[in-house]
Amino acid sequence: MTTPIDFYFDFSSPYGYFAAMRIDALAEKYGRRVTWHPLLLGVVFKATGAVPLTNVPVKGEYALRDFARTARLHGIEYRHPETFPRPTQAAARAMLWIAAAHGDAKAHDFARAVYRAYFVDGVDISDPAQVANIAAGFDIDGAELAEAINSPDVKDHLKTEIDLAMARGVFGSPFVIIDREPFWGFDRFDQIEAMLKNGSI
Amino acid sequence: MTTPIDFYFDFSSPYGYFAAMRIDALAEKYGRRVTWHPLLLGVVFKATGAVPLTNVPVKGEYALRDFARTARLHGIEYRHPETFPRPTQAAARAMLWIAAAHGDAKAHDFARAVYRAYFVDGVDISDPAQVANIAAGFDIDGAELAEAINSPDVKDHLKTEIDLAMARGVFGSPFVIIDREPFWGFDRFDQIEAMLKNGSI
Repeated sequence: MTTPIDFYFDFSSPYGYFAAMRIDALAEKYGRRVTWHPLLLGVVFKATGAVPLTNVPVKGEYALRDFARTARLHGIEYRHPETFPRPTQAAARAMLWIAAAHGDAKAHDFARAVYRAYFVDGVDISDPAQVANIAAGFDIDGAELAEAINSPDVKDHLKTEIDLAMARGVFGSPFVIIDREPFWGFDRFDQIEAMLKNGSI
Repeated sequence: MTTPIDFYFDFSSPYGYFAAMRIDALAEKYGRRVTWHPLLLGVVFKATGAVPLTNVPVKGEYALRDFARTARLHGIEYRHPETFPRPTQAAARAMLWIAAAHGDAKAHDFARAVYRAYFVDGVDISDPAQVANIAAGFDIDGAELAEAINSPDVKDHLKTEIDLAMARGVFGSPFVIIDREPFWGFDRFDQIEAMLKNGSI
């Protein structure tokens, strides 16, 4: 009996996008399921004093190059959005509500569609109307979703998720925890696979 | 006709240590040579506002775990030093002087020995006497080395190296540049190998 893998991410994180495109298939290969936890890096970064990578002098230019190169090497479509990063409250709350109301499978499909909308089609995913539009592709009622995004319950749910993530030591995106072992970054997916394969690392 | 690969590192950087243990063999596999550039991350970090990874709340604890895990996965001996990081002026100047006075091969051997002294045996590599002691293992005269470490010429050489590195966009350790393509981190060695293999990336 194995517990699910925990996958933490922000919808505005390029490496989170790459991870989202791969993690379910990787886990399934080793008979594991994945619990997806959308979070807001802005809140998390306050705890560590971090700033968005692309805002750092010199390192920011390198990051742009690394996003594109990593996507290319992994065969993932990528166009760096003109506005970056974007606030992701609407998308994160929408996903939590979809998982609760429509199940995890639909929530994961929705999350991948949000990522593609932002990192391939340049959609403004900070706009609740655009988020509802993406959800409509999965037969999710737009009015219900709009109400959910603004409901105190769903807002509290996201806050609680972020508090729990920080209590577990999560400080970036993507962040994966497998049986208490933490992995930060899409570039740790080889270590994640070794962990899944061998049961320890 | 190929130009050498440029390898930038700080002697107090764990990921720099892992890179130093692998880069010559990796380059040689693809018929390339490596120019080693010791630098002082403290100087470089001033340009980007970065701080040593282990000083960052939450992230620091993860980093310690990642150093040990990465070493284990790559079969590299590693004991996190009790005092970390250490100033590395003495080691960096010594290496530059050894390369000029005794050739690159000896300088690379010396550099790997400095890294092992710090990250396996816990030697205080900020101490010029300890640096001279390591150099003695390669038949390098201790008095000559001590004089070199304090000479204005060698000090200027290191300053110039750091200025040139920053002008090329170097902001961390390890940092590798192959035919103008930059790679930051030991976790980019798979991309480095792809670049060496295919000539582009």
